[in-house]
Amino acid sequence: MSWTSREIHLAERPTGYPDDKTWASVTAEVPAPAAGEFVVEVDHISLDPAMRGWLNDVRSYIPPVKLGAPMRALCTATVIASAHPEFAVGDAVVGTFGVRERAVSDGRGVTKIDLDAASAPTWLGALGMPGMTAYFGLTDIGRAQPGDTVVVSAAAGAVGSVVAQLAKAMGCRVIGIAGGPDKVAWLKEIGVDEAIDYKAENVLKRLRQIAPDGIDVYFDNVGGQILDAALANLRRGARVVICGAISTYNDPTLAEGPRRYMSLLVFRASMTGFVVFDYEDRYPEAVEAIAGMIGDGRMVARETVLEGGVDAFPDALLGLYRGVNTGKLVLKV
Amino acid sequence: MSWTSREIHLAERPTGYPDDKTWASVTAEVPAPAAGEFVVEVDHISLDPAMRGWLNDVRSYIPPVKLGAPMRALCTATVIASAHPEFAVGDAVVGTFGVRERAVSDGRGVTKIDLDAASAPTWLGALGMPGMTAYFGLTDIGRAQPGDTVVVSAAAGAVGSVVAQLAKAMGCRVIGIAGGPDKVAWLKEIGVDEAIDYKAENVLKRLRQIAPDGIDVYFDNVGGQILDAALANLRRGARVVICGAISTYNDPTLAEGPRRYMSLLVFRASMTGFVVFDYEDRYPEAVEAIAGMIGDGRMVARETVLEGGVDAFPDALLGLYRGVNTGKLVLKV
Repeated sequence: MSWTSREIHLAERPTGYPDDKTWASVTAEVPAPAAGEFVVEVDHISLDPAMRGWLNDVRSYIPPVKLGAPMRALCTATVIASAHPEFAVGDAVVGTFGVRERAVSDGRGVTKIDLDAASAPTWLGALGMPGMTAYFGLTDIGRAQPGDTVVVSAAAGAVGSVVAQLAKAMGCRVIGIAGGPDKVAWLKEIGVDEAIDYKAENVLKRLRQIAPDGIDVYFDNVGGQILDAALANLRRGARVVICGAISTYNDPTLAEGPRRYMSLLVFRASMTGFVVFDYEDRYPEAVEAIAGMIGDGRMVARETVLEGGVDAFPDALLGLYRGVNTGKLVLKV
Repeated sequence: MSWTSREIHLAERPTGYPDDKTWASVTAEVPAPAAGEFVVEVDHISLDPAMRGWLNDVRSYIPPVKLGAPMRALCTATVIASAHPEFAVGDAVVGTFGVRERAVSDGRGVTKIDLDAASAPTWLGALGMPGMTAYFGLTDIGRAQPGDTVVVSAAAGAVGSVVAQLAKAMGCRVIGIAGGPDKVAWLKEIGVDEAIDYKAENVLKRLRQIAPDGIDVYFDNVGGQILDAALANLRRGARVVICGAISTYNDPTLAEGPRRYMSLLVFRASMTGFVVFDYEDRYPEAVEAIAGMIGDGRMVARETVLEGGVDAFPDALLGLYRGVNTGKLVLKV
């Protein structure tokens, strides 16, 4: 027994935005599983801003994707053949299977998921890596407290929308920054206190107006001028959480840094980076908290699900950087 | 009884480096002290990098110097007339008397000093604000531990030289960054493990060579490219202490920020600002520790003392930004 698998491989490291030369569409053979292995059929592929960084041949928190290898991606999948004692045919799982239709796995880093509890896209979003990122970034790194003014950028995105709703549930005042009237409207729907459309408004001035006493926690997903706008409006003792910098990931130069970083001194503030993988041991805590909030209606888990299978991946990824998604962006295989 | 006092007033807020138009040299009348007041004769004036920031009309950790007012400065002085119950004629004191020969004080923020324990310049340096800044920045903000690799910029300066020696005494490996062979030679004399001449060497590459396992604590006094060089060479969990940014203070634009700030994410590191005034209650702890080290020879307190009285202040301040000093820069009145 064997299968074929359409796969997207990294053909060439891009400079700036990925383009046609970046990717190769390949049909691979997937053999029957050896002892201790199983084969999955991927159903949903996660699109993550961090993917762009994985294409660069630089030392980072995770090794780069190798040239000629399948593009790294988190996926939900179903086990279709197994010679592994812990995974049975029919099991729904999440794992880093890559941008492909089928894959062999030895089970490392693979977790079973309950599709009755939440849909596959939600297991890649609010209950997946973005949700974990939001939870530990806000609580552990941001040390958010009831009454804090919490500002989050890319607030309508996969991580930001969970941050916003977690912070609201903790009793914080929440200001979300997002691009465009639809995202702003959705943020108000899910209960943020204020929403700023960075495409239409001066973020620095608006923050000064609506947070005149300053920001306690700024959860940054974007970098660039929005990070500077937040730095200019901190409260004493503020915590700036460096989660991502989507505005810079496709910049072929080393993008400008935050000009207002000396605000950290003026406001006795800190800016701290983190990587969600470090919290793996505590994922169950976050899943339980977020699933509970989804269950009782305090958390809306939203996903934008694109169709088109693995061959739609290159366009889907560019769409992510254009901000086509509200909530988590997922590609259906 | 009254006195005259030569004083340097702020005449005009500078753009870029202060120049002739920035300052006015004035002779003021100093009246006899009213009840609860005393009059001091200033003997040494402290030159501090932060002074440039005090000239800007912006919200910061301390109000700007007012136009037409004496330039703010820490000074050592002697009480020459007193109607204050706690200060007697002949007392040696340190206080923010300003760039002037004589001043009236109500005693707020004024501390008596023991000139037998240390010279007046040392009370403005290792035992003054720079020493306090070094102590709390390294221990509280940097959380330096024995065995840590500690890198400090402006390492031959007033703050940096105390940081370097405190860190050595704590059992850290210390790398000092300074400008020019004389400063580098002095740093080696006072026991740093490695010294980098940023004017002659590529700091980023040198740090990679001599700290291949990365930096645990980076104590930044300078900002700019040296901050970036340190950020590129952090160790996981590193603490970046934002104490100053002397390379940017005279830049009339908002200088570039640290391009490599995303290293904070890669290395799970933090960058934290602080202001020494917040530690006022704990100054005695730092004075005791540093005085002890001076006493037993583990700390060299060095000062560069300029002559010329208050009228030499404008040039002395420019000299500070050129880096004419090794150790604390002080102007003798």
